[in-house]
Amino acid sequence: MTLERWQKASEWPLIGAALIFLVAYSIQVIANLSDAEGFWADAVVWASWAVFAVDYAARLWLAPQRGRWFVMNLHELAILALPALRPLRLLRLVLLLKLIHTRAGNALRGKILSYVFGAAAILVYCGALAALDAEQNDPQANIKTFGDALWWALATITTVGYGDHYPVTLVGRLAAAGLMVAGIAVLGVVTASIASWLVETVSTEAAEKSAEETAAALEPLEALEERIEVLTRQVELLTAVLARTTDGARAEPQEDRTS
Amino acid sequence: MTLERWQKASEWPLIGAALIFLVAYSIQVIANLSDAEGFWADAVVWASWAVFAVDYAARLWLAPQRGRWFVMNLHELAILALPALRPLRLLRLVLLLKLIHTRAGNALRGKILSYVFGAAAILVYCGALAALDAEQNDPQANIKTFGDALWWALATITTVGYGDHYPVTLVGRLAAAGLMVAGIAVLGVVTASIASWLVETVSTEAAEKSAEETAAALEPLEALEERIEVLTRQVELLTAVLARTTDGARAEPQEDRTS
Amino acid sequence: MTLERWQKASEWPLIGAALIFLVAYSIQVIANLSDAEGFWADAVVWASWAVFAVDYAARLWLAPQRGRWFVMNLHELAILALPALRPLRLLRLVLLLKLIHTRAGNALRGKILSYVFGAAAILVYCGALAALDAEQNDPQANIKTFGDALWWALATITTVGYGDHYPVTLVGRLAAAGLMVAGIAVLGVVTASIASWLVETVSTEAAEKSAEETAAALEPLEALEERIEVLTRQVELLTAVLARTTDGARAEPQEDRTS
Amino acid sequence: MTLERWQKASEWPLIGAALIFLVAYSIQVIANLSDAEGFWADAVVWASWAVFAVDYAARLWLAPQRGRWFVMNLHELAILALPALRPLRLLRLVLLLKLIHTRAGNALRGKILSYVFGAAAILVYCGALAALDAEQNDPQANIKTFGDALWWALATITTVGYGDHYPVTLVGRLAAAGLMVAGIAVLGVVTASIASWLVETVSTEAAEKSAEETAAALEPLEALEERIEVLTRQVELLTAVLARTTDGARAEPQEDRTS
Repeated sequence: MTLERWQKASEWPLIGAALIFLVAYSIQVIANLSDAEGFWADAVVWASWAVFAVDYAARLWLAPQRGRWFVMNLHELAILALPALRPLRLLRLVLLLKLIHTRAGNALRGKILSYVFGAAAILVYCGALAALDAEQNDPQANIKTFGDALWWALATITTVGYGDHYPVTLVGRLAAAGLMVAGIAVLGVVTASIASWLVETVSTEAAEKSAEETAAALEPLEALEERIEVLTRQVELLTAVLARTTDGARAEPQEDRTS
Repeated sequence: MTLERWQKASEWPLIGAALIFLVAYSIQVIANLSDAEGFWADAVVWASWAVFAVDYAARLWLAPQRGRWFVMNLHELAILALPALRPLRLLRLVLLLKLIHTRAGNALRGKILSYVFGAAAILVYCGALAALDAEQNDPQANIKTFGDALWWALATITTVGYGDHYPVTLVGRLAAAGLMVAGIAVLGVVTASIASWLVETVSTEAAEKSAEETAAALEPLEALEERIEVLTRQVELLTAVLARTTDGARAEPQEDRTS
Repeated sequence: MTLERWQKASEWPLIGAALIFLVAYSIQVIANLSDAEGFWADAVVWASWAVFAVDYAARLWLAPQRGRWFVMNLHELAILALPALRPLRLLRLVLLLKLIHTRAGNALRGKILSYVFGAAAILVYCGALAALDAEQNDPQANIKTFGDALWWALATITTVGYGDHYPVTLVGRLAAAGLMVAGIAVLGVVTASIASWLVETVSTEAAEKSAEETAAALEPLEALEERIEVLTRQVELLTAVLARTTDGARAEPQEDRTS
Repeated sequence: MTLERWQKASEWPLIGAALIFLVAYSIQVIANLSDAEGFWADAVVWASWAVFAVDYAARLWLAPQRGRWFVMNLHELAILALPALRPLRLLRLVLLLKLIHTRAGNALRGKILSYVFGAAAILVYCGALAALDAEQNDPQANIKTFGDALWWALATITTVGYGDHYPVTLVGRLAAAGLMVAGIAVLGVVTASIASWLVETVSTEAAEKSAEETAAALEPLEALEERIEVLTRQVELLTAVLARTTDGARAEPQEDRTS
């Protein structure tokens, strides 16, 4: 089995594991369960972790150059091994946007905007979850409920940043950094899509005008055609006159002319 | 009566109802009237609600596929039925921007900017109203006067977000979310309009230069035309000489030439 | 004297009055002078006000349709009559940007960026001044020194909005609104200039490629020219043969051919 | 030795000095060393300062017009002489981005984005360092650890601006101003790159369509060519017939035809 085949075959199971992880992790974080209370949720989180670990091992095994693959994918090992990076496993859900991809039709800008808003929604949810997980048990933190976490994530990704809630732990701030960068990207894509649409609408008019001008410049071509027709008729006439003049002319040239 | 006719006929009455609702709702919220004091304002709000309800019922009745229409317009039912979503009825006022549309002339960018600033102004006002309605009777809230609410809405839509005032209730935060998204759209449209204007100005010059170059490249066509004309005249001359040479030639070929 | 002449003649004196007003007003506000202490500054402010008032009266007098001019320029009357709008007189300093205009050379984007950064600098200074004037004697305000006011204005125009300082008075908030809108415009112009430069750089390459393709498409034109030359030579040959054949041919046709 | 040669030869030593300065300065600031504790770090900072001073003196000496060079480079003297401007020496590290330049390949947008993100990362680090240096010993400041400083710098450059941490000293605020302006530039470049990519993708399709249309419009040219070829052959035939008819014709015309 090759690496490509494995990745193709494992894509949907991994998204499924990420979804299950999302649900269990959401319950665990939002209910702020202790280890005892959240036994079942914890078990599901570990089960989904096992799926990711198996996938990692399988890909490492199948890689043509294992050493190189290991170095290039160190971040995946970190996400698997470090509990603090757990929320990053949710990023695999961005692959769900492939569904949007298929449904949104052909228009490039429509696809891009769907992607960006889909990714923004996933990021706001996962960023809020990650920040809440990191913050809620910190005595100095001010993000204590999932509602506050979502509100904070929204104010961050739109770069509004009221400052009524803000992360104080390292993991919470890393989640914030991700949301800030995503916010800049969202702003960029929205603006760029509008700009591109405006430029296209205006330049289409310009292109039509330019096409008309080219057509006008090509008008002599038709005049040329007519002129050559006149010339042809004239030569035909000459031939006819000549044929009449030379009484001994034979028929072959007439036949040749049709070839 | 068809659905389209109803919608066309009901458009202005509904905008009127929305305007009346705006005034009554503004008075109710800004003066923070109790149910007893605000009896008249309340009655007007209910009357405008009745207009919206009648419109909803009529459209549901007239829809060709009622089940489908009902599912596609669930959000309208929610706006009618849930008091918390009352402010969303004001969004119908965005239709007033049609008046700008008619007056702003032809330029695409001018129209778009007028729309966006008009929509931003309506959104700031309605967002401030909705947030104030939700916040002012909450003990922990800090948006207590309409001036503060407007100021907060402006700081939100421009993504400045000082954080001196911020919503703490769910409805207030939903209004904030609407303003944030609108702020990104405003920023995008302003930037895109300037970018499109700059690109157009620069590319128009480039297009003119390119058209000149094409015209220059097509100049040989005219030279060619002259050349063929000379050639034609030469052949004509030849024919004439030939006709004169052969004394027995008849007049028909000469006549043919003029056709 | 016509209105146009007056406006042309009064332009620089008015900018001078605005500059003097700026200095006197700055001293008055930054030193937070009482009416007694700031007598001289106050006198200068009133003198510059007189210049603006005379200009207003003169323009009203010279206007072809005084009623219409009065209605169209109500905002100028408000700026003259209402002390709270005093800082808006400083907006006339934006005319100083004409100097940049002359010096910055031809490039459209360079001119626009110079304008925008010049206007942003003037707005930050005047916005800070106006906010400080409105806020510093308010007991609940937190903008109390010119340093804080400048810092707040900068955080506002860049839409950062820390919230460590923020206006609480109506005039201060109006100044903030101006800075916020200016901030969106600055962001828009910066982005648009970069975008336009990128688009132009890329599209110039595309235009060159397109010009090459058009040139390639026009190559048959040259082939056509050669073909017609061959044809011409052939007809000349025909004429020569014919001349030799008909011994009685005269010289006139040969002369005609050169015409 | 000329100024250009010196600048070329001193470029890498100066970047090296800036890197050494960065490390020593980082240690000094982050550990908040007193003068006694930080003796070694201090010595290294002074050594790198000496390198910059020697470079300044050498360039002043080598400049063709020393007076003019002195005036044009007053900011460099200020950076050397004023301890508060020390962090600005780190800006020389932006020259390290030349390495990105070489590695990122040809695509214009890729290069620009690499530059901007590289510069943003350097600016966040240096801005945090400069602000921490200025703030940490101020009793009223709230940026006291390097983690907080980095977090504040990130929230500033992305224009989020929570306001949980903010500078209160002049130098800290100047660092903030630099980060704010950089933030606007980053936002502008990201948006512009996406917009340019979208415009290019769309306009390439349009250009291809336009090129096809021009090609289609030029198709008659080929038809014309064929037509003239037929005509030429006909005239050739005519000449041949004529030559055969006139028995006394010589071979020269036939030879002429091939020339």
